Amino acid sequence: MTLGELANKVGATVEGDAQTVIEAVAPIATAGPGDISFIANPKYARFIDTTEASALILDPQTPCTRLPVIRHPNPYLTYARVVDLLYPDQPQTGSGVHSTSFLEWDVNIDDSTRIGPLCHVRHGTVIGKNSQLVSSVYVGEDVQIGDNCLFYPGVRILNGSRIGNNVILHSGVVIGSDGFGFAPSERGLKKIKQVGWVEIADDVEIGANTTVDRGAIGPTRIGSGTKIDNLVQIAHNVEIGENAIIVSQTGISGSTKIGNRAVLAGQVGLVGHIEIGDDVKIGAKSGIHKSVEAGKTVFGYPARDAMLSKRIEAALLRLPELLKRVRKLESKDSDKSGD
Amino acid sequence: MTLGELANKVGATVEGDAQTVIEAVAPIATAGPGDISFIANPKYARFIDTTEASALILDPQTPCTRLPVIRHPNPYLTYARVVDLLYPDQPQTGSGVHSTSFLEWDVNIDDSTRIGPLCHVRHGTVIGKNSQLVSSVYVGEDVQIGDNCLFYPGVRILNGSRIGNNVILHSGVVIGSDGFGFAPSERGLKKIKQVGWVEIADDVEIGANTTVDRGAIGPTRIGSGTKIDNLVQIAHNVEIGENAIIVSQTGISGSTKIGNRAVLAGQVGLVGHIEIGDDVKIGAKSGIHKSVEAGKTVFGYPARDAMLSKRIEAALLRLPELLKRVRKLESKDSDKSGD
Amino acid sequence: MTLGELANKVGATVEGDAQTVIEAVAPIATAGPGDISFIANPKYARFIDTTEASALILDPQTPCTRLPVIRHPNPYLTYARVVDLLYPDQPQTGSGVHSTSFLEWDVNIDDSTRIGPLCHVRHGTVIGKNSQLVSSVYVGEDVQIGDNCLFYPGVRILNGSRIGNNVILHSGVVIGSDGFGFAPSERGLKKIKQVGWVEIADDVEIGANTTVDRGAIGPTRIGSGTKIDNLVQIAHNVEIGENAIIVSQTGISGSTKIGNRAVLAGQVGLVGHIEIGDDVKIGAKSGIHKSVEAGKTVFGYPARDAMLSKRIEAALLRLPELLKRVRKLESKDSDKSGD
Repeated sequence: MTLGELANKVGATVEGDAQTVIEAVAPIATAGPGDISFIANPKYARFIDTTEASALILDPQTPCTRLPVIRHPNPYLTYARVVDLLYPDQPQTGSGVHSTSFLEWDVNIDDSTRIGPLCHVRHGTVIGKNSQLVSSVYVGEDVQIGDNCLFYPGVRILNGSRIGNNVILHSGVVIGSDGFGFAPSERGLKKIKQVGWVEIADDVEIGANTTVDRGAIGPTRIGSGTKIDNLVQIAHNVEIGENAIIVSQTGISGSTKIGNRAVLAGQVGLVGHIEIGDDVKIGAKSGIHKSVEAGKTVFGYPARDAMLSKRIEAALLRLPELLKRVRKLESKDSDKSGD
Repeated sequence: MTLGELANKVGATVEGDAQTVIEAVAPIATAGPGDISFIANPKYARFIDTTEASALILDPQTPCTRLPVIRHPNPYLTYARVVDLLYPDQPQTGSGVHSTSFLEWDVNIDDSTRIGPLCHVRHGTVIGKNSQLVSSVYVGEDVQIGDNCLFYPGVRILNGSRIGNNVILHSGVVIGSDGFGFAPSERGLKKIKQVGWVEIADDVEIGANTTVDRGAIGPTRIGSGTKIDNLVQIAHNVEIGENAIIVSQTGISGSTKIGNRAVLAGQVGLVGHIEIGDDVKIGAKSGIHKSVEAGKTVFGYPARDAMLSKRIEAALLRLPELLKRVRKLESKDSDKSGD
Repeated sequence: MTLGELANKVGATVEGDAQTVIEAVAPIATAGPGDISFIANPKYARFIDTTEASALILDPQTPCTRLPVIRHPNPYLTYARVVDLLYPDQPQTGSGVHSTSFLEWDVNIDDSTRIGPLCHVRHGTVIGKNSQLVSSVYVGEDVQIGDNCLFYPGVRILNGSRIGNNVILHSGVVIGSDGFGFAPSERGLKKIKQVGWVEIADDVEIGANTTVDRGAIGPTRIGSGTKIDNLVQIAHNVEIGENAIIVSQTGISGSTKIGNRAVLAGQVGLVGHIEIGDDVKIGAKSGIHKSVEAGKTVFGYPARDAMLSKRIEAALLRLPELLKRVRKLESKDSDKSGD
């Protein structure tokens, strides 16, 4: 595809030779002839002068004259669209149920959907159009799955889960495991039977080996457009809004609510029964023990307003010296008192 | 079931109309007619005046006159018992081995036990009565499994593991993976062959995608009644006592011992070769680098006595201001000295 | 085997009765007659006077006269070699493809390799000599796997992955899941198609339920001899050098580079796009938000030089008292000013 064709399809403008042929995308540091690369993180701008890429995707400001350039105010989104054009999805190779898979009675699967090898789908379950269970996927009883879903090998969806359209679940994801609920009794810890379920709205993507527990009673909910990374823990009765971003190894405790467009960085932990407002940003590794108002940015363990956290952190670096300074003041004071 | 019948079976007292019919449990905020709800966390008491539930489970103190109430000193335990009554287990639908599963020679499985589809059970393994391997469960060589166990889809139990009665393993649990042991040598890191095993006592429950490594030599042990949440890491030769609670994403390093009834909140990390006494409580996200005496409550990174942690945290908020105050004292002091 | 034979084979010296018969290894606290034990951690030296082991592996300095001893400057490595001698690998019981497994067309697997039950290997894939897929392993399209690999039950290797020789992947490992990349757009979060792959060099071992994402473009790379523990997250385009050690539940964000022989302790988190130099050591639970020069030891959240972290930590314990001392100085000062 030529640079001009690409630019046209993604609604960007070309600078330089629009006839440049583009065959692949590559990271700017290792790109070669035929590759297009992009800069969204200014850290990588230093490579503009040396990259062997045939073309770049840049924002309107970043200078570059040695190479043909596609310019767009959102170079990252433009890059995403270029990737889609250069790497079209392979057409799905057939539908139906593989002979090594086992479907129980009373299962309703659209003819266009593909059940790969070694899957197990239980009774009462419904799966919509053009979905794909790649391999070794378990779907329990009375599960509802929409259209255009893609479940990678080793996904486990337990009884009663409700999953919308265009949902991507990566390998090892567990949906609907029991929540962690036990009541102390005279004879040890009594299990609280987890009789709720999981609801996942449209356009959700969940990363490898992430776990989403069913509600103790009622649902655990993940709103439409929300993206969850690998090895995340979503406890029972958590409710996550729309278009939220939950990065790897974060844990959200029971009944906590996360607002729309909230961004939780990696390894964040939240206690149960709190509310995180819309558009909240939580810094990596923060420990959140109380609710956070909409729009706030918080950080730290324990988490505080991000600006306050930075001030305290700067002050901490001076704390050992401060101890000495106070000792000096005290000794002068005692000298004076001694006078 | 009527409220009177429920109260009678769980040993609680009724206030109000004992003939109220109860069909389901529901969270207090969303409950409707026919539902019973409960309050164990005072945070939710504000819903008493507005809930549409038909009845509530409360402790003896919490006031409520607008609805029929079941009262018990332990409302959470009472709720657990009510759930059991309203949602009885479905009877197990048959025993035997599914035709898509593969059993090796010399396997000893009680007739009452059910091996679902796509399981693999290896030679030398013994499984007791009324246990259930739901689907896609792997059980290695020479494994011992007791009665009434429930292993969800995707559980992997490696060679030589010993599992008691009434053990629940959720999807993706790995029991008996190699511990992480390597000795530096002239030719890189030499693997220490992990020749131990895992022992899990009765009434243990382990959450989705949690990993329990085999001992390097000798066992890794989990005591009876202990409950472990999702995505927890238990390293080689860890020993956990009875009725302990280990919350999600916690990691316990090699050879560390955890006492009876210890409670480790979420995302806690413990170094190896330390001892956590009986009844210790460790706050969420704490980093524990030395042993903790029985009965203590610790918190923080690095962890300290919980009261001290709180004092330091309060002082930290005043640290930026403290720097200014010391600067002021110094400048006054220097003014005086200059006099 | 006698103590003399063992010592001879591992290049160590014997003190005491070289004819002592050794049958097994055991932890020093629980060892009995016929067992050999070792001390690498001085914490366990107190057991030398009481252990019932028949012999010990010690360094040249540690005193011990009551038992026969093998001495070597590296007792841990010597122990590793003794374990190999006392617990030889069982010979692999046959090669070939199990009848319950499904191989697609155009698969090239060496005759000496063993594909256990319930595996799925997709088209275009090549597997070398003497490798073993134990059970329920998924290998996607166009994957390259070398010789002598060992993949435990439930391993998932996605399309296009390239894996060297002598690689061990424990149960539940996911190789080649999509990286977490989304560009904000007018219509929510647009997925950045992840068109890269994963490259794992020789002699790598990866722990249970760890996830390694494919590159967004280009590879995610793990260098030869590197060992990764359970439940670790390796994001897209991460590059890890040779002989690195990454302990459990650590997370490495996108495009970050880790040097040779770096050691990352448990639950460490690293932001993306930074470089960790060769031989860097990072303490448990640290949060790393900027690059670290080769050879440094860092610790804390946020991470600092380890010595500085310790000084600050010590000062923090005195902070509540410091507040009081400053208050006292201020009140004296104000008294004087009042004079």
